[in-house]
Amino acid sequence: MAKLKNLVFYLRVKKLTISSAESVSGGYLSYLLTKTPGSSKVFRGGLIVYSPQSKNKLLRIPNQLLNKTQGVSENISILLAKRTKQFFKTDLAVSLVGFASTPAQKDIKVGTVFMAVADRKGAITKKIIIKGNRDYVRKKASISAIELICKRIATPR
Amino acid sequence: MAKLKNLVFYLRVKKLTISSAESVSGGYLSYLLTKTPGSSKVFRGGLIVYSPQSKNKLLRIPNQLLNKTQGVSENISILLAKRTKQFFKTDLAVSLVGFASTPAQKDIKVGTVFMAVADRKGAITKKIIIKGNRDYVRKKASISAIELICKRIATPR
Repeated sequence: MAKLKNLVFYLRVKKLTISSAESVSGGYLSYLLTKTPGSSKVFRGGLIVYSPQSKNKLLRIPNQLLNKTQGVSENISILLAKRTKQFFKTDLAVSLVGFASTPAQKDIKVGTVFMAVADRKGAITKKIIIKGNRDYVRKKASISAIELICKRIATPR
Repeated sequence: MAKLKNLVFYLRVKKLTISSAESVSGGYLSYLLTKTPGSSKVFRGGLIVYSPQSKNKLLRIPNQLLNKTQGVSENISILLAKRTKQFFKTDLAVSLVGFASTPAQKDIKVGTVFMAVADRKGAITKKIIIKGNRDYVRKKASISAIELICKRIATPR
């Protein structure tokens, strides 16, 4: 994954730091972000907010919002990214939520993931629906989140 | 990895919850713990305490201890596991620290990892030295931590 090495290299050169919050991927996104030697210079830390309780306790996502969507929505991905950025005091933060297996929401498909990247100017989000088994959804979603970070830092603001 | 499925199944049946704190593996250990469908019933959350700052801020590991060992020691692995257990209010917690690439400590080899599992009775730890490249060290260490959890819950106390 050439993009990943380039991303870590770019962040190092620009002296930018990053942090993460993920549920559906369970740590795989952070594993990717720390795969490259030298990533300790840019990656400050990550939160695996796998349960609604952890989303609420660690990042103050309102329970009302969590109950309505089981923690999976565009809005929640944005809140997670913004608050993770504050939590770790980093320049950027990435978040990833979704359903890798059965969702309890009737109007949402298995494989639906929402991701967001926050920086000092705000946040961008992406929704994708990934076809495949549980492990494929988790890995593909993580790679997609890396691509969203690359997109965000490549966009002049 | 049959052990992993058995572990999640066992924890579900026994209604036991688990959480994690990892640095060297960067999320891979938590990714494994959440790989099996149904893991959301047992895995509450994880912390990727990749930087000394995050170990100090999230789990109150004293800076003096961190500076002396770069965050890699048996003692730190025990503290991380015990405090993660408190942090997420889970029955068990697992921690993993180590050096996947160059360590700055002169008396410690690349591939050295310390892991710990805490429960209400205390904690057990393990130190191993893994030979291989960065990615292999991270993955092998994570699998080893899973085995330590299995060992802990299989030991009658």
